[in-house]
Amino acid sequence: MKGRGPEVFFGARSVAVVGASPDPRKAGHQIVRNMLDAGFPGAVIPVNPQGLGVAGLRAYRTLHEIPERVDLVVIAAPAAAVGEVAADLERRLEQRGDVRAVVTAAAGFAETGTEEGRRRQEVLLGVCRRHGLREMGPNCVGIIDNENHVDTTFIVGTRRRRGGVSMVSQSGAFGAWLVSAWSAQVVPAGINKFCSLGNMADVDLVEMLEFLGRDDTTRVVGMYLEGHPDARLLVETAGDVARRKPVVVLKVGRSEAGSRAALSHTGAMAGSDRLYEAAFRQYNILRVESADELSDTLQALDRLPLPRGDRVFLVTQAGGPGTFCTDVLASFREVRWAEVGEGARSALRELLPPFASVCRPEGYCDITAAATVEQHARTVELVLRDPGVDAVILITVPTLYIPGEELAAAVADAWERACRAVGPKPLLCSFLAGDVVREGRRILEERGLFTFETPDRAARALRNMIRYRQGLLRRQGGDGKECTGDGPFDRA
Amino acid sequence: MKGRGPEVFFGARSVAVVGASPDPRKAGHQIVRNMLDAGFPGAVIPVNPQGLGVAGLRAYRTLHEIPERVDLVVIAAPAAAVGEVAADLERRLEQRGDVRAVVTAAAGFAETGTEEGRRRQEVLLGVCRRHGLREMGPNCVGIIDNENHVDTTFIVGTRRRRGGVSMVSQSGAFGAWLVSAWSAQVVPAGINKFCSLGNMADVDLVEMLEFLGRDDTTRVVGMYLEGHPDARLLVETAGDVARRKPVVVLKVGRSEAGSRAALSHTGAMAGSDRLYEAAFRQYNILRVESADELSDTLQALDRLPLPRGDRVFLVTQAGGPGTFCTDVLASFREVRWAEVGEGARSALRELLPPFASVCRPEGYCDITAAATVEQHARTVELVLRDPGVDAVILITVPTLYIPGEELAAAVADAWERACRAVGPKPLLCSFLAGDVVREGRRILEERGLFTFETPDRAARALRNMIRYRQGLLRRQGGDGKECTGDGPFDRA
Repeated sequence: MKGRGPEVFFGARSVAVVGASPDPRKAGHQIVRNMLDAGFPGAVIPVNPQGLGVAGLRAYRTLHEIPERVDLVVIAAPAAAVGEVAADLERRLEQRGDVRAVVTAAAGFAETGTEEGRRRQEVLLGVCRRHGLREMGPNCVGIIDNENHVDTTFIVGTRRRRGGVSMVSQSGAFGAWLVSAWSAQVVPAGINKFCSLGNMADVDLVEMLEFLGRDDTTRVVGMYLEGHPDARLLVETAGDVARRKPVVVLKVGRSEAGSRAALSHTGAMAGSDRLYEAAFRQYNILRVESADELSDTLQALDRLPLPRGDRVFLVTQAGGPGTFCTDVLASFREVRWAEVGEGARSALRELLPPFASVCRPEGYCDITAAATVEQHARTVELVLRDPGVDAVILITVPTLYIPGEELAAAVADAWERACRAVGPKPLLCSFLAGDVVREGRRILEERGLFTFETPDRAARALRNMIRYRQGLLRRQGGDGKECTGDGPFDRA
Repeated sequence: MKGRGPEVFFGARSVAVVGASPDPRKAGHQIVRNMLDAGFPGAVIPVNPQGLGVAGLRAYRTLHEIPERVDLVVIAAPAAAVGEVAADLERRLEQRGDVRAVVTAAAGFAETGTEEGRRRQEVLLGVCRRHGLREMGPNCVGIIDNENHVDTTFIVGTRRRRGGVSMVSQSGAFGAWLVSAWSAQVVPAGINKFCSLGNMADVDLVEMLEFLGRDDTTRVVGMYLEGHPDARLLVETAGDVARRKPVVVLKVGRSEAGSRAALSHTGAMAGSDRLYEAAFRQYNILRVESADELSDTLQALDRLPLPRGDRVFLVTQAGGPGTFCTDVLASFREVRWAEVGEGARSALRELLPPFASVCRPEGYCDITAAATVEQHARTVELVLRDPGVDAVILITVPTLYIPGEELAAAVADAWERACRAVGPKPLLCSFLAGDVVREGRRILEERGLFTFETPDRAARALRNMIRYRQGLLRRQGGDGKECTGDGPFDRA
């Protein structure tokens, strides 16, 4: 059954939705809607016992009577109907043999902990096994593939944008939350692929990681993790992916109570958190502490160039927020303050008013609240071009003197000029004025930058980028320790 | 000069804006706009050298020719013009003697570190001293008083709502950022008074804290702090206020670099951060780590009842986010898991499906993604009513089955019923579905609850509420240590 990889989910050209409903409050309706809204170029075929059309699409009563080819079946029918659905699916497979994958959204399977639930799961899985199908779920929110315009989820209000972030979640709700939050951003997160694993009856986390590791359009992998029966295999797989692209993980179960909550949620033995922690470090897997940090880190890694070193320069138009961010950066042992050369120092002193704080402290420049658009842009360009600087954070509270849109365009220009001149360097922007700067932030993001809600979130994402790069260097340095089997899970 | 307290700023009945401009990109325009938008019931009088009307208001060329009474003067004219403005003000004072307070928005005074800047500040202050006026600033964003419909700031896009949160900031930009962020919330933060201190030439932080401490409509005080020349007086004053209402502080300068940034910003000696830290603990002043935590804590303390103990119950419809939040709560030593009685346990087991996790772990209930509106509301009510529970966090990812609006109304009803039955208890809600739940969150907030962007932010705010209560008890317990002068600043 493992002959076909998870690509069968993401490359589908026609999708049948079993349990498709004309009632907009049902998952079986929203799934059809999401497939259409995603711009799926192939056929979307509703299936329900009455053969009721959904969203103007012709429906069928059963899978086996659909005349077109069907690659992927999404099951939104209740778990209680799984016997009929499985029989219908099997009949189709015997007749046509076309379906390659099943996504089962319905809950009521093994996750209930009941004999009946386990039996239902086995019935469905049995059909898949006999015919070489891959199954996602059951009890999952579904998959999104913005490369191929697939969205089998029932998440409402999604704004889809292609990008390099792929996310795999052991919690459907956590995944749905992220997709919703990403949709509400000034520019939606660039999701490449999203996958809610559900009960992992067939496709499991390790296989998904392997797949995302070799998927060329995925630039960075995010993971919500509760635990895995083979923790060593999991972290080795993630570590292998992390040689090629960053893997960012929010792992729960740090605490005794959290472990027990995870256990009653997915049945996952969280395992010793300390072992996971040690393995994450060893394999350069970036562990984050919150959903915000996960979001920021994934998007910063996707959109911005990786810093070539750990020397950070902070440019601020706002003394208070700049001082606050300085404290946050200073608390990270991965970060050093950049020392710009004498040329940049005198250019900054000439550019800025005498009461601006140029390199006081080192790696910091307060351009003052009176700074013009040009002073913002030229400062950013000067420090980005300095060979002693690997990354720049820009904080500003654009007031009525400096319209956010004009400022954003000038800053994006400066960044591009500097990158053309000295090679790509990350610029992390935090424009702090609530809804007033939404348009300015949109401009920055459409020019390829990423904007952060708060300066501390920018600092944290940058720390993680630097940490990833340091891990890459360490592993390339090559004591090969992580591959020899003496990892933390062996020492346990 | 200290005879009149800061109330002179907040009780003004007529305001003249010097430097008022018809150009919407000037601070002197936005200040007039904000006074009008705030619904100021008295006269707003533009003053500029040409006597140009602003926003349809009649203007004057000088202060001294205004026929009406003037309580408050806002100076938005450039610092270079301070000589003329001060002379004009003095002439008015000699003739009419009515003005009681001045807010100076303009920058270019002592903060520039130049002789000229200091001289300008002295000129202005000299007039104020001679005539018994109080002065705020210079170099400040201004003041807001939603009780009296005053807004002398030039912050754009402010949505004003009366509430119990008063905020005093040693950074104008930090303050402006908060006001902007609070305006962008689903329901704007309930600001009582806001004050940007600027150079503190006259009114300083200690006096503002004293004032907010005795101001009855202020329920909770927030502070952005860089440092104070008399750190001991500052923390003792804040500690005195904290006996009556919570004081929440974001203090920067934790790090060496941060101290130096603060020094070059406001010239404030950040002082030893460890001494501040110890004093904050001793005087029950709540120190927070970020602007988000400051916002959440202030608003939770303003809107929600203080928990009567430290026993927290977490209700979640979403396993992943619930497990994540469990870890966060478990990391706080101030928090204990609530143990509900046998009655509540069996009622929950009866109410919820068999695969729901009822009190597994203790203090935790996963009502499952299939939970109805009624199951949400009844669970919340059951645990709130249990005598073993002091506070409840509710996490949910409302999908299309459970419309956020309906759920919000039912949850607010349940909270009210429980509070009527057993007395007030805090309920902290985190509805996690991006823009889709804005309307639901609005309903919850209009019913007196507060909603959090993320579960960890709810957990952190609750931890701070519990910490405040524990501090109150400790101080009431009464070794009186904090008043005997053996505080950390003495031991230094």
